[in-house]
Amino acid sequence: MREVFQQSLRDVQNRLVEIAELVEASIENATTAFSSSDASLAESVIDEGEQIERLANELDQQTIDILALQQPVASDLRLMVGALRMSASLERMADLAQHIAQLARYRYPESAIPKGLKKTFIRMGALDVEMAQKIVELLRTQNAAVIDEVRDLDDDLDELHAKVFEKVLSDRVAETPVGVVDATLASRYHERFGDHAVSVAKQMQFFLSGSTD
Amino acid sequence: MREVFQQSLRDVQNRLVEIAELVEASIENATTAFSSSDASLAESVIDEGEQIERLANELDQQTIDILALQQPVASDLRLMVGALRMSASLERMADLAQHIAQLARYRYPESAIPKGLKKTFIRMGALDVEMAQKIVELLRTQNAAVIDEVRDLDDDLDELHAKVFEKVLSDRVAETPVGVVDATLASRYHERFGDHAVSVAKQMQFFLSGSTD
Repeated sequence: MREVFQQSLRDVQNRLVEIAELVEASIENATTAFSSSDASLAESVIDEGEQIERLANELDQQTIDILALQQPVASDLRLMVGALRMSASLERMADLAQHIAQLARYRYPESAIPKGLKKTFIRMGALDVEMAQKIVELLRTQNAAVIDEVRDLDDDLDELHAKVFEKVLSDRVAETPVGVVDATLASRYHERFGDHAVSVAKQMQFFLSGSTD
Repeated sequence: MREVFQQSLRDVQNRLVEIAELVEASIENATTAFSSSDASLAESVIDEGEQIERLANELDQQTIDILALQQPVASDLRLMVGALRMSASLERMADLAQHIAQLARYRYPESAIPKGLKKTFIRMGALDVEMAQKIVELLRTQNAAVIDEVRDLDDDLDELHAKVFEKVLSDRVAETPVGVVDATLASRYHERFGDHAVSVAKQMQFFLSGSTD
């Protein structure tokens, strides 16, 4: 019985890693589609969202079954509670990757990136991808040192997010309303992606240490 | 022991209602601050966010304690899992009310509402407030009929959200970049508020029926 239980905990961890890997692929493809105006790549990101949602729902059900049947305590309980929350965050990250891909698709064959902001958005996309990679590493290795790395990347992302508004609102970049809407939404999506990555990192901290501080 | 357990389940339910009531007050004040450019009301919404966060954290801790010590099953377990998820959604709704209040404060003494969109945003705010009221009612009465009402309100909200972009991007409303940014963000905040209300409704459905369909 104990062995079955340990196996089901490993299953949960493996599923989290699997979902995080799919999120990483999604944000990488969404970012590429956004910066290169690749409509078919954007389409594939949107299609893959369903798979991530299905996996997250399966994970939730498994977690609830473990809570009901095996009644874990201490760090095992924290992993189950954390898994429920992390699956929700990973699902949101996948949603946001889809939103970024949708912007690319809406504007195709035009670029969704306003002039003068190309470098900033490429950097934001790279930060999101790096954060997704760190989340995969954190879930796989449970190495607490990665948590601070995720937070640092999020700080960089927040700075860029502020910079986008500064540029859009300045007179230097004379934007059309479409450009302003796209920049505003895309920047917000990138920023929220980072916030959810930090949420996942915090849940791992809670699991590893029993504290969220 | 059984009585203690029943009392702790009621506690969880009461705390959810309490947090939902605070969220309702927040979105009501945020909406008023946004439409009337009331900076001090906006400030109070921002200040109250901390209280909601604290209450949500306390609720999470209580839920985890119940899972660990009283090992609920069946609908009691669903309520605990649902409480963890609903507290996260309610906290996000409070965040979004704060974001709307922040827009009002940033633009003060100017209005954050672009010309030509005043009626639309007043209607979006009213829908958000109504959804928050329905969520309080749903949590308090556990009346499943309210779930569909929440979904219907969200459909109306999504329509208005699409309309905002249509107007902002049309030539009829010649907006400054600031106006376009504000309208884009505010509309997105209102729409997300509705999405989280629907999430809470879905969790109640899961609790009441054991199914999310």
